[in-house]
Amino acid sequence: MKVLLVGFGVVGEGIAKILIEKNVGIKIIGICEIDYSIQNPDGLYLEEILDLKKSKGTFKSHPKAEIGKNAQRYIKELSADVVVDVTPTNIDTGEPTLSHIKDALCAKKHVVTSSKGPLALHYRELKDLSKKNNVKFLYEATVGGCIPIMVLARSYFKCNTFKSIYGIVNGTTNYILTRMTNENAQLDQVLLEAQQLGIAEKDASYDIDGIDTACKIVILANEYFNMNVTYKDVCVKGIRTITPEFLQIAKKKGFAVKLIGSISDQKIDVAPKLIPISHPLNVSGVYNAITIKTDYTDDITLIGYGAGKLETASAVVNDILSI
Amino acid sequence: MKVLLVGFGVVGEGIAKILIEKNVGIKIIGICEIDYSIQNPDGLYLEEILDLKKSKGTFKSHPKAEIGKNAQRYIKELSADVVVDVTPTNIDTGEPTLSHIKDALCAKKHVVTSSKGPLALHYRELKDLSKKNNVKFLYEATVGGCIPIMVLARSYFKCNTFKSIYGIVNGTTNYILTRMTNENAQLDQVLLEAQQLGIAEKDASYDIDGIDTACKIVILANEYFNMNVTYKDVCVKGIRTITPEFLQIAKKKGFAVKLIGSISDQKIDVAPKLIPISHPLNVSGVYNAITIKTDYTDDITLIGYGAGKLETASAVVNDILSI
Repeated sequence: MKVLLVGFGVVGEGIAKILIEKNVGIKIIGICEIDYSIQNPDGLYLEEILDLKKSKGTFKSHPKAEIGKNAQRYIKELSADVVVDVTPTNIDTGEPTLSHIKDALCAKKHVVTSSKGPLALHYRELKDLSKKNNVKFLYEATVGGCIPIMVLARSYFKCNTFKSIYGIVNGTTNYILTRMTNENAQLDQVLLEAQQLGIAEKDASYDIDGIDTACKIVILANEYFNMNVTYKDVCVKGIRTITPEFLQIAKKKGFAVKLIGSISDQKIDVAPKLIPISHPLNVSGVYNAITIKTDYTDDITLIGYGAGKLETASAVVNDILSI
Repeated sequence: MKVLLVGFGVVGEGIAKILIEKNVGIKIIGICEIDYSIQNPDGLYLEEILDLKKSKGTFKSHPKAEIGKNAQRYIKELSADVVVDVTPTNIDTGEPTLSHIKDALCAKKHVVTSSKGPLALHYRELKDLSKKNNVKFLYEATVGGCIPIMVLARSYFKCNTFKSIYGIVNGTTNYILTRMTNENAQLDQVLLEAQQLGIAEKDASYDIDGIDTACKIVILANEYFNMNVTYKDVCVKGIRTITPEFLQIAKKKGFAVKLIGSISDQKIDVAPKLIPISHPLNVSGVYNAITIKTDYTDDITLIGYGAGKLETASAVVNDILSI
């Protein structure tokens, strides 16, 4: 299987590392960065590219790098079976991933992505486009990191009708709320330390104000409940107003406070909620947890790290292998 | 898809209920009990059979019931695509399920079962038989109730190498340990009440002494780690010697005691273990929980009810639909 890899940040590197380690029949025939790319129809020598990236921060100096060539050109020109887009999420427009995905689907290439933006904004359009062109469009890595949440919707629950989904799908806020509770500390103080540790972004609004959670819950709503919503349709309340005093009172009453995205009775919302301390959703630190209820099964909860280079990369590689 | 259903206890009834409710393209053309059966090549009218079972405890009085005809005859004579065996688990010989499965596979029929016995004793032989006859053999319902543990091994983790599996796969012992801890009560007392509530069997040894856990962990070891073991190969320690005093000391130190089946470094064992209170595996009551670690993902934990009529039945129906 011949793959064009668009984006060579942390996740792209993780994919290369896995493909070096495991002989799974995937050949990377092209890698695109914003303003330079590299190709080899027989398969790129990934060790060399990874080494360059590691030592110089970029593979631009590779003798075969084509400066000025970009993903748009490669998607058109290369004979890839699958286009894998692991460029960063842009939640305002979904670009440039959105265009990459559309171009690839229209060129009848399968698409795998880890980028939430296009799915949180144009889910139905992209799904329809993949159907129309009779190619697969997979995005396991967009929600819940290593939690195999999409594959279950796609290939397991065939006789069940989904009733509700509740989940912690943002590790950063969970980490902050956990530390605020354990250390009786203010949000600002914990956030600053989380930023220093690289757990939170410099612009924390995306996590703290619930936007990331909303994007993910929208993807789940469209996937599990066949809805047609974008993240702009979600009523979102973040964790900015949560105080350590409130967390202590909740704890005394037997509850933990978690930023929960929920879908139930065709309603979607994101807000801090009280979770009984003994409930499986009450996970600490950077864990994600998602609870699914169907007409024939009571709560099924899946827990795992919500991020991580190899976690995300292996979700992408597993998507490629399921094509 | 034409299905022959062998066994019409709680799970069989659950399957019938789901197929009445959902139009999923499955036709039951035969149902076998120990010494009577019923068939209709165009599909049985399940409402009538369920009503009879409900009112009289058996459908023996159905005008079309064939007294004396058994599963062996039906597997040979009926033109079913799939044989579904939901007869009770027999852990000493695996019979009669073992013979049903072998007969069906040799007759080139797909097989779905919820019965652990044959898998805990003859896993490799049955898998080889299904491969040789080019038919599917699925058994999602044998481990973890509604937790989709088998489908993940089969269709998700394609690039990952499994490192370890730890799990609570017996709801009865988890219920007993939870109550012993919460109420500071003796095992015998809690067990008696669990038996009265129908949560524990009259002969509790199968649960309490860890045999059921061993059977399930053997199935996971063979499935996930490609091992070739039977439950007789497992070093098993049950919960019989656990005292409320021990549970209280553990609790004070921040641990819960759980009966854990584990597979790690090619070693399988079943024993009560100390689980940190904040670990995702620390689930209460009749919950099951299974933690999987792979080379690219840290712990992924799946939690759900380990039993239940519709939980188990829907796992069976989903297996049928994935054929």
